[in-house]
Amino acid sequence: MTTNLLIRNVRPMAGSNVDILIENGRITRVEPELSPLGGLVEDGGGRIVVPGLVEAHTHLDKSMIGMAWYRNEVGPRLIDKIETEREAKIRLGIDPVRQSRRQALASVAQGTTHIRSHVDIDTVHGLAGVEGVMRTRDELRDLVDIEIVAFPQGGMMIRPGTIELMRRALEMGAEVVGGLDPAGVDRDPKGHLDAIFDLAQRFGRPIDIHLHEAGELGAFSLELIIERTRALGMQGRVAVSHAFCLGMHDADYVGRLIDELAELSIHILTTGPASQPSPPVAKLRSAGVVVGAGNDGIRDIWGPYGSGDMLERAMFVGLRNNFRRDDELEWALDVCTRGGAGVLALERYGLMPGCWGDMVLVEGETLADAVVSHRPRALVVKRGKVVARGGVAVQTSPAQMSTKTY
Amino acid sequence: MTTNLLIRNVRPMAGSNVDILIENGRITRVEPELSPLGGLVEDGGGRIVVPGLVEAHTHLDKSMIGMAWYRNEVGPRLIDKIETEREAKIRLGIDPVRQSRRQALASVAQGTTHIRSHVDIDTVHGLAGVEGVMRTRDELRDLVDIEIVAFPQGGMMIRPGTIELMRRALEMGAEVVGGLDPAGVDRDPKGHLDAIFDLAQRFGRPIDIHLHEAGELGAFSLELIIERTRALGMQGRVAVSHAFCLGMHDADYVGRLIDELAELSIHILTTGPASQPSPPVAKLRSAGVVVGAGNDGIRDIWGPYGSGDMLERAMFVGLRNNFRRDDELEWALDVCTRGGAGVLALERYGLMPGCWGDMVLVEGETLADAVVSHRPRALVVKRGKVVARGGVAVQTSPAQMSTKTY
Repeated sequence: MTTNLLIRNVRPMAGSNVDILIENGRITRVEPELSPLGGLVEDGGGRIVVPGLVEAHTHLDKSMIGMAWYRNEVGPRLIDKIETEREAKIRLGIDPVRQSRRQALASVAQGTTHIRSHVDIDTVHGLAGVEGVMRTRDELRDLVDIEIVAFPQGGMMIRPGTIELMRRALEMGAEVVGGLDPAGVDRDPKGHLDAIFDLAQRFGRPIDIHLHEAGELGAFSLELIIERTRALGMQGRVAVSHAFCLGMHDADYVGRLIDELAELSIHILTTGPASQPSPPVAKLRSAGVVVGAGNDGIRDIWGPYGSGDMLERAMFVGLRNNFRRDDELEWALDVCTRGGAGVLALERYGLMPGCWGDMVLVEGETLADAVVSHRPRALVVKRGKVVARGGVAVQTSPAQMSTKTY
Repeated sequence: MTTNLLIRNVRPMAGSNVDILIENGRITRVEPELSPLGGLVEDGGGRIVVPGLVEAHTHLDKSMIGMAWYRNEVGPRLIDKIETEREAKIRLGIDPVRQSRRQALASVAQGTTHIRSHVDIDTVHGLAGVEGVMRTRDELRDLVDIEIVAFPQGGMMIRPGTIELMRRALEMGAEVVGGLDPAGVDRDPKGHLDAIFDLAQRFGRPIDIHLHEAGELGAFSLELIIERTRALGMQGRVAVSHAFCLGMHDADYVGRLIDELAELSIHILTTGPASQPSPPVAKLRSAGVVVGAGNDGIRDIWGPYGSGDMLERAMFVGLRNNFRRDDELEWALDVCTRGGAGVLALERYGLMPGCWGDMVLVEGETLADAVVSHRPRALVVKRGKVVARGGVAVQTSPAQMSTKTY
């Protein structure tokens, strides 16, 4: 059965008013005043339409969204957070199925159509997180695409048995090989990076590595990543999340690193962090590096912030990068749409005929206005189906969910 | 005529449930289950109540809130913004009466009960800004207290005639002497600071100076401010806004500056800027320095950001200072309430009997939750009168406003 959705009177990327016809999940026509074909019709009211927002770095398995407030008294070191979290998951009952579902639905409500989620793997919790998020991915498959990164949050070299768990996660269906601070956490940059590149090679999967290491230490780890990407021919298949080291002051050194990232198509993912050195988005983009963004953890043991809104995240990216002009804010929005789509290597992403019918109608006079105001989304469409309206997900309890109470 | 307001079932600073009685604008009783005295009664529904939010650094005269979207193509230098703005005020018709009213009402709706606004004074626009904001201050006097800083935005030493305009602004009723980057903009740190301290001495007024100057230059200007504060006995009467130089890396030097600020009761105002070095709020507070916060310009020539929400600003302060624990987020909220009240030297500020009945009921399980979620305010009370409800100002068109259409 053919299903059609005609969205009337919208402005793609704040351009001229058109109608958009989506047939069988794909955009087929983008023209002024199309005739209805007998399917559903939505009135866009002249609103701006942008492709679905891409949440390219988050942690669906560990959010405490919807749970009782967690009073955070966690110490300042990375390891304090890692250890507190490992214990708190059990004590507080942070169920990865329930919590990933809650966060994913919050994302859908706010116009996100694609999510890349790192999911913790460690020798205490094993693959429970991956199994949980896989279940949510399956349940919500008509609402949002979820990609899973097998993520050794507690360290890999320092926790024997973790590499084997990573392998099993990839066999189960995690799409991406994760990694974490090869020096700062795992104390063995060569060993850590050799291990994750080996997994990537064996399984033919891309890599997305958390790199919080700052300054010269982070730059050294980044050099090791660059060397392996070149040696193994993994151009376009490696992403570095956070990459605080690219915010260091040595402009010449950073410039050389950026040139190598561009040459090897190594992607960068940022949150636009206010309290950390930060990859310079404008410089990266002008060098040709694909930059995506994510909300990172939302209301979890690491911190209480976050709503899951990728338009608000575009604002944070703008604020961090001192973007004030309209064209700069359009870059920030691009990072949260096409940039993330580039990192995830999404096919048929955009608002042209042939693309998937994944899009969001935003409020605002201009793209910059939509970013800084980030008011509730008027309409969110996933493969031609309305999945949220007025900031609320249409489907909050799919049939599968009723079989068990979360 | 006595007017009473009884607010039932609220939790001051997230503490135990009490009722709050306000008589003739002042809090008279804070106790569980008070008996009504025949005045108005509001049900707080067990919500957290905090003292009115204090917007301690903004620019009411120049917001473009409610106007058509301004496409920002302004250059990157400070002077680009200053010169573009001076011209745009005329070309775009940025009316200081209308715009200050719009922004002040948006602030009221979001729980702000006190505003310190810098208002531009220059030789092109003269005192039009001050006159405009004074009119709004008068019209909205039952909704919000507005304090005016005579602010030489375009420079003072480099624009002869500006000091005389500053003098006239103070005579007209501006309460505070402003200043701006004595080296970076005015090119004469000694001359600029001598001039503004002289005005402060002659009129017996406090000082609030914008100091964007970074690193060693800003620290030098700050030293000059410290020297004059000490020499003239202006302890507790000087505030420095932005003070990016306190975010410099030289921890020993910054530590010495902070000790002097504490000794002389020089206050610091911050926005929690993501893209600039920033005063370390925790260090300043633990040294005894009063720190307030403000939204700075909202949707103006300088940049498109901002909603006027001081709870959201507390979140920005938290993000910038890497505050993650609940107690840290409570500091951020304290900066946006008691901290600002300290800078403005407000009397009878707080939730104790004897204080003015200025308060806001917020949504959230805890104070930290209220900050990170910053959902629309349930109720805003100014001197015992309800001025906003559910995020909407009760009085959007006072009688005085109807005499002219804005």
